[in-house]
Amino acid sequence: MDPQPAAHRTVSPRYLEERAARVPHAELIARLAQLRAELAARDLEAALIVQNADLFYYAGTVQQSHLYVPADGEPALFTRKTVARARVETPLEVVPLESVTALPEQLRERYGALPRRLGLELDVLPVNQLRRYEALLPGVQAVDVSPLVMRQRAVKSPWEVERIRAAGAVTIAVSERLPELLEEGLTEVELAGRLEAVARSLGHQGVIRMRGFNQEMFYGQLLTGASGEVASFLDTPLAGTGLSPAVAQGASFRKIGRGDPIVFDFVSVVDGYTADFTRMFVLGALDRRLEEAYAVARSVQEAVAARARPGVRCRELFETALGMAESAGLAASFMGYGEGRVRFIGHGVGLELDELPVLSPNDLALEEGMVFALEPKFVLPGLGAIGLENTWLVTGAGCQVLTPAPEHIRTL
Amino acid sequence: MDPQPAAHRTVSPRYLEERAARVPHAELIARLAQLRAELAARDLEAALIVQNADLFYYAGTVQQSHLYVPADGEPALFTRKTVARARVETPLEVVPLESVTALPEQLRERYGALPRRLGLELDVLPVNQLRRYEALLPGVQAVDVSPLVMRQRAVKSPWEVERIRAAGAVTIAVSERLPELLEEGLTEVELAGRLEAVARSLGHQGVIRMRGFNQEMFYGQLLTGASGEVASFLDTPLAGTGLSPAVAQGASFRKIGRGDPIVFDFVSVVDGYTADFTRMFVLGALDRRLEEAYAVARSVQEAVAARARPGVRCRELFETALGMAESAGLAASFMGYGEGRVRFIGHGVGLELDELPVLSPNDLALEEGMVFALEPKFVLPGLGAIGLENTWLVTGAGCQVLTPAPEHIRTL
Repeated sequence: MDPQPAAHRTVSPRYLEERAARVPHAELIARLAQLRAELAARDLEAALIVQNADLFYYAGTVQQSHLYVPADGEPALFTRKTVARARVETPLEVVPLESVTALPEQLRERYGALPRRLGLELDVLPVNQLRRYEALLPGVQAVDVSPLVMRQRAVKSPWEVERIRAAGAVTIAVSERLPELLEEGLTEVELAGRLEAVARSLGHQGVIRMRGFNQEMFYGQLLTGASGEVASFLDTPLAGTGLSPAVAQGASFRKIGRGDPIVFDFVSVVDGYTADFTRMFVLGALDRRLEEAYAVARSVQEAVAARARPGVRCRELFETALGMAESAGLAASFMGYGEGRVRFIGHGVGLELDELPVLSPNDLALEEGMVFALEPKFVLPGLGAIGLENTWLVTGAGCQVLTPAPEHIRTL
Repeated sequence: MDPQPAAHRTVSPRYLEERAARVPHAELIARLAQLRAELAARDLEAALIVQNADLFYYAGTVQQSHLYVPADGEPALFTRKTVARARVETPLEVVPLESVTALPEQLRERYGALPRRLGLELDVLPVNQLRRYEALLPGVQAVDVSPLVMRQRAVKSPWEVERIRAAGAVTIAVSERLPELLEEGLTEVELAGRLEAVARSLGHQGVIRMRGFNQEMFYGQLLTGASGEVASFLDTPLAGTGLSPAVAQGASFRKIGRGDPIVFDFVSVVDGYTADFTRMFVLGALDRRLEEAYAVARSVQEAVAARARPGVRCRELFETALGMAESAGLAASFMGYGEGRVRFIGHGVGLELDELPVLSPNDLALEEGMVFALEPKFVLPGLGAIGLENTWLVTGAGCQVLTPAPEHIRTL
């Protein structure tokens, strides 16, 4: 009675919308070539890539797959679901895989032997999944390749930079609608919802990917007045109350009043790529101390951006910023207050919100093509939070803003 | 120059909004008592709970913490960030933890010795994090406690059921606004954004938690016409194109036209708890074959709901549904088409969207207090998708709908 459905029925390309930018195939091939060289240099026979952001980076698809990348040999995408979409989205050979238990047989058939030293994304791979691979590939030695993947992903291609610029343009367009959507007495979450709808209409994909365990993000943080002072589990300078202890970050039911500093910290993701951006708004006038702190934040941004160029270490940028906050007598309020303070002034962005480089006291040197969000912010107890954020590209000549928009506090 | 900020500065309770339902402390104590009994029955000395949904379940907070639950002794919450919020949100003792490296010393001090057989959430815990614990707790044997945690979480308390009912009420209220927000020629994602803004104004927390590796969800799926036929990596009967291959699910740039089946599959999360709900809309008239399939979906729902009571196995419900789809000659279209078909007709919901019980061919027996979404759906190639979904509570007398709303196709 039940006719067997055609296996791997073709998805008509008309369903893959024209507005969606697909990763150029030459770019995927170049990324894989670099990964293979890195594997060879570390005596790894292969890498098995399975996490969504990494799969998309190397294969151009998030269809449920194991991407097998031998140091010496052709990569293949072993796909469970859906094979039809994977075939449309990736230039790699797509091998249907009914179940992960069939993987060893498939690898033997294709590559002659099973890997012994195998690279896996051990910062994100769940323990049970590793145990499964270890049972299927007897004697395999699992080596963490995430550091080298993240190091590679930190340097963006011109094509990737354009994707991040497009995401930035969405955030900027949303910020420009804020004045007309804000009303006194609106709750933070009501305003957030209106802004989010604008972002969606402009192509925001909704899903924001973070790599850190337990780290979560929903558009960023719309925080007003006292909400700006509330830190949370999140590794961010500002977090906010959120709607309940279950989510514990972001917009709350607080009513927006006159004189409240309004922090619009908005993350956009378009075609997989992320931009991070913060601007300040106020109904009426802002407390003078907040305005002074904001002037310091702008100076910090200017000084750090002027110094950020290839070869400069993250540590130097962090120390420059911290030194300026100290000189202004605002060190205790810089990048959070009390236990909410974080030890960084910015972070890489790309397919995930928490990428390299991290602008913290570490020795990674900037390189041309790196992209980071720089977010000097202050929390002034009793007054709220203030600061700004742009996404920047490191070029040979210095650094260039990917989110160009006026930076003054918008008084409404 | 830099005054040391007060460690663990108190968060004023005024920031923890009155509208946010906190988990009653007696309920947390009861949950922990059950977990401790389960640990003792399995000869586990303790469990170390670290994942957000589980932390919230047992401690009422997602502040960055290690929850240590000895089989024999008092649980304690070792919190890195923020201690102030954790202290407001949980009745447990909160112990400040500067870094995870201090954990062994803290455990020794408090419990006399380090655990040997330790329960961990191995389905979600990243490998590197386990390796860190193994280095810190020499000789420790890591045992997966996620199955027992998920088994416990499957049975909801009356308080939890009310939270899910409240989340359901948000989804229903959003669905009631759809007719006025829909316009012919609008794209799916524009309509989705408008509906999402309504959900936010009603207290939707935004973040939707899923337990499965790589599984992601943004409000659910708003799919129209041909979009309903596009399957994806996601373990769901319907998925849709999404805005690009990077996200590969959900609303797309497709323009909504007359006669398109409009699937409103909308997940709400309020105070951490999830409800799942699907209704159908159409501008003008629907193809008769879609209407017929919808009638079958409603019969399937009726038959399964009538059968679902304590003691009934998931397998029986699945087979009932599949048998009815077969009798109607629609088996090949049931729960997806081609490689998009899934082998379940529903799933547990709670703090995560993918909980137990899974209504698939498995032998788990329903129990009073279990909550599941039942979603009989059909994909008719060339016509689109159709179906409905409600969230249900298993009671001693049978099962009760937690998302009561009219079920006819809304013709606009």
